[in-house]
Amino acid sequence: MSAQTAIVLARHPQGVPHLDDFRFEQRNVPDAGDGEVLVEVRYLSMDPFLRLQLAPSASMGRPVRPGDVIPGRALGRVRTSRDPSLKTGDWVIGDLGWQRFSVMAAQSLSRIDVDDGLGPSVYLGALGSPGLTAALLLEATQAAAGDTVVISAAAGAVGNVAAQLARLRGCRVIGLSGSQARRDYLLSVLGLDAVHDHRDPAALSATLVERGGVDVFLDSIGGALHDAVLSSMNPLGRIVMYGFISGYNSSGKPASYGSMMEVLRKRLTVSGFLVGDHASLFPSALKQLHELVRSGRLTVVENIHQGLGATPQAFASLFDAAPPGKTLVCLDDDPL
Amino acid sequence: MSAQTAIVLARHPQGVPHLDDFRFEQRNVPDAGDGEVLVEVRYLSMDPFLRLQLAPSASMGRPVRPGDVIPGRALGRVRTSRDPSLKTGDWVIGDLGWQRFSVMAAQSLSRIDVDDGLGPSVYLGALGSPGLTAALLLEATQAAAGDTVVISAAAGAVGNVAAQLARLRGCRVIGLSGSQARRDYLLSVLGLDAVHDHRDPAALSATLVERGGVDVFLDSIGGALHDAVLSSMNPLGRIVMYGFISGYNSSGKPASYGSMMEVLRKRLTVSGFLVGDHASLFPSALKQLHELVRSGRLTVVENIHQGLGATPQAFASLFDAAPPGKTLVCLDDDPL
Repeated sequence: MSAQTAIVLARHPQGVPHLDDFRFEQRNVPDAGDGEVLVEVRYLSMDPFLRLQLAPSASMGRPVRPGDVIPGRALGRVRTSRDPSLKTGDWVIGDLGWQRFSVMAAQSLSRIDVDDGLGPSVYLGALGSPGLTAALLLEATQAAAGDTVVISAAAGAVGNVAAQLARLRGCRVIGLSGSQARRDYLLSVLGLDAVHDHRDPAALSATLVERGGVDVFLDSIGGALHDAVLSSMNPLGRIVMYGFISGYNSSGKPASYGSMMEVLRKRLTVSGFLVGDHASLFPSALKQLHELVRSGRLTVVENIHQGLGATPQAFASLFDAAPPGKTLVCLDDDPL
Repeated sequence: MSAQTAIVLARHPQGVPHLDDFRFEQRNVPDAGDGEVLVEVRYLSMDPFLRLQLAPSASMGRPVRPGDVIPGRALGRVRTSRDPSLKTGDWVIGDLGWQRFSVMAAQSLSRIDVDDGLGPSVYLGALGSPGLTAALLLEATQAAAGDTVVISAAAGAVGNVAAQLARLRGCRVIGLSGSQARRDYLLSVLGLDAVHDHRDPAALSATLVERGGVDVFLDSIGGALHDAVLSSMNPLGRIVMYGFISGYNSSGKPASYGSMMEVLRKRLTVSGFLVGDHASLFPSALKQLHELVRSGRLTVVENIHQGLGATPQAFASLFDAAPPGKTLVCLDDDPL
């Protein structure tokens, strides 16, 4: 047994997460029991979804109470194993939490075959849940060559991969983002067809209609942005919601969803999407993503913070000023 | 050329249609020109959808202005034909309008092979658009044996057929209706598994959850009823909206559609449905419906008003006290 620093919930956030919602505490690292492994955490994945678990009554996922270590998907390496399925040095992904070491049931972890030519962090991004989400969202909407695809949070972890994959399918891709820097990146580095600021819904809607309307809309934001794109959809359009960031920081009545009349009149299809429902498609999708990354046709976009101390800030940045790509915290050589 | 009585729009309805919104007028019946036919109207189909066309700015369909003859789907018989595709005596369906005679382009009409064993009115109901809508809605949702299917306006033209077809598929069918008489009919005559008043959304939602939640929801009403059922959906549930009656009589901001979080959290699919998009499926669906009606497994439920004079009242009843089934107006032996 040894001691380490862990990040615990100090209080339930009110609105956008604040640094004071989190507290650094010394915690014991227990020894691994039968069937368990001790994992050294290497990369923490920053996911907007976590915000929902931090609410007093979590609407999705396991609720977190003040004093609990903050949960979170992470990539680590097995230090000691007391289960035959994993051995020292294996790379694993699981809910390791915001801490340096984690003792976990071996069965709760996924072992990763790391391609030495790629940084291991890619397995939390383009070759992990966000990449799979992007690929399977496009499958679900049957986005085809010539379709106009609008992606909210297009510079985000899922969005940037979805935008690139939609381009590879021959779609016309319009990326939405609230920052000029991210929009520039989407246009000049990732080669999107157009970008638009989502913070002026009326202008957004008018522009989208002018450009011929929207066939596919991948949305993780919701709210006024959502309604603006909804009103620009073409008949038989497909909308998939895979997140609802605009609602994550509010505690009131959940925002309502668009206009019924619009859905009816244009015979739209609107679906909620969680990647975990589609596990049977993971192997083939991962194989394709891996080939695209290896060949350089899919650019890996990451935004890596250094050290456990930077974690609360990295998380809060998801709701504000995060640079393009998957936001991660690297714990290599962490002094904490 | 001869004269006849037609019903014209006196003024745009405010809220629920009122008898004074309509006016009876003498109109000339023109002679049929080349490619046209003169049709004697026999049955007028009363459709809630028409209400949208009567608004000052119609959100769907061809707008109707004061002084215009009220449009509307109807069944009639060709009296004189100046087109080789139709001959005297042929039964046809088209937008004949609220009048005794209509001169129409032959190409705008569908010829019907009337089964003499069935009343011709069935071709506006169970073997017409409503029946096709019901059958294809169930196809679209893939409602399967064991699924719990909730149908709003379950005693209506589409609803009663959908409820019967869902029972034949082995689904558990819960019908919603705002009148005790209609609910009794659904339970005792059509054999639904349960019925519920939709006018108490909180009680409705609680009851549906108690009964194990909802897998498929066919909705033509919208509004508070919709949200109540939405909150009772099971994961991966399917919702199809094929109408939005609660919004037809309002001129304000279109009602919003349920809760985004609910759609996301339960990975629901919500679609807008117009039967015309599915024309390629009509022949096989009609064949099946015809067999079911002939064999008595599908009960034809009709609610027939007599005479053109009864038409405004018949239409207004759709939004209030209509008895179960397809509402029609029969013009046979009409004195007008």
